[in-house]
Amino acid sequence: MPKQVDHENRRRSLVEASWDVIAREGLEGVTLRKVAESANCTTGRIVHYFSGREDLILSALKTAYEDSESRMSNIIAANTDPMSRLHEIALEALPLDSKRLREWRVWMVFWAAAVSNEELAIENTRRIKAWRNLLHQLISETPKVSHNREAELAFEIASFIDGLGIQVCLASSPAELKRSRKLAIEAVKNHLATIMRQQD
Amino acid sequence: MPKQVDHENRRRSLVEASWDVIAREGLEGVTLRKVAESANCTTGRIVHYFSGREDLILSALKTAYEDSESRMSNIIAANTDPMSRLHEIALEALPLDSKRLREWRVWMVFWAAAVSNEELAIENTRRIKAWRNLLHQLISETPKVSHNREAELAFEIASFIDGLGIQVCLASSPAELKRSRKLAIEAVKNHLATIMRQQD
Repeated sequence: MPKQVDHENRRRSLVEASWDVIAREGLEGVTLRKVAESANCTTGRIVHYFSGREDLILSALKTAYEDSESRMSNIIAANTDPMSRLHEIALEALPLDSKRLREWRVWMVFWAAAVSNEELAIENTRRIKAWRNLLHQLISETPKVSHNREAELAFEIASFIDGLGIQVCLASSPAELKRSRKLAIEAVKNHLATIMRQQD
Repeated sequence: MPKQVDHENRRRSLVEASWDVIAREGLEGVTLRKVAESANCTTGRIVHYFSGREDLILSALKTAYEDSESRMSNIIAANTDPMSRLHEIALEALPLDSKRLREWRVWMVFWAAAVSNEELAIENTRRIKAWRNLLHQLISETPKVSHNREAELAFEIASFIDGLGIQVCLASSPAELKRSRKLAIEAVKNHLATIMRQQD
């Protein structure tokens, strides 16, 4: 019997290899050769799944977003209380483990690249909108928040999470990384509690 | 009489030209030729002032920070009330005009580059520490904040400002840019007011 190839898995492992290269060397470090090395395969396999470097890079961005979105959906499905949903989602969005730290590094690289790359900018804008919409929806389900402040609060919470994530990403030592993660968790807790208190 | 050359001015105009290129094309777009074109001079002039591309890039980062720090110092000198100092400093830190938007784009590019460049990472870390220390100092001068929350609040405010700045930088249209600047100004005002209320 011929060997069955799981194309979805192969494609995925190439995307993961590209994340490693992006997180380590930035977008300009991404060459098909380096990604192939990191995935332990030939460049031939990469061009079998992607039309080229640009396609691989865009897929890397899209897949990172899809991964994050699917984790968010799981959290929403598992929580019924609106406040704990919002809290869990905010924590999930932070780089609190090595997997999410790699994801964040990839995003930071893409944000910077979006400044000069129209296609990445469009993809980024789509993601920012979806993320703020999700926060908006979660906030609107929280009975305490008045309707006319929802969009504003979604913007604030999205901003706060981005800023906290950056502090964690830019931590200069393992001790600093640990400390900034702890501070970020506390900050999210305080910020959400404050928002709810303001509405009382 | 021989023509007097203002070397400080010439050096500065080369740094500004490099900011334009970085904000437009990212770090990988920076070549001596492009910076020379943007500064309307020869590449020979650039190598007269900088030892090469790396030196120019590091100077671009350092000068952006020095510029921002000097504006902060002016604000501190001009305000005596601790709360208005903190408020003014937080607003100054945001990309509320085109000059600061260019500066922010340059920083975003450097943050991403710091992931894979040790020298830029060291410079970034130095800047992050100085910025948090400044916020810490300003918070400690605010009579309402309890001593044991100062470092935490400095981390929170720095995070919030970074996140708000990113939303503005990633705005996808002039209307969105205007809206996100307005939301960022409001968010800073609310956040600082809330911090102060919490201490009552």
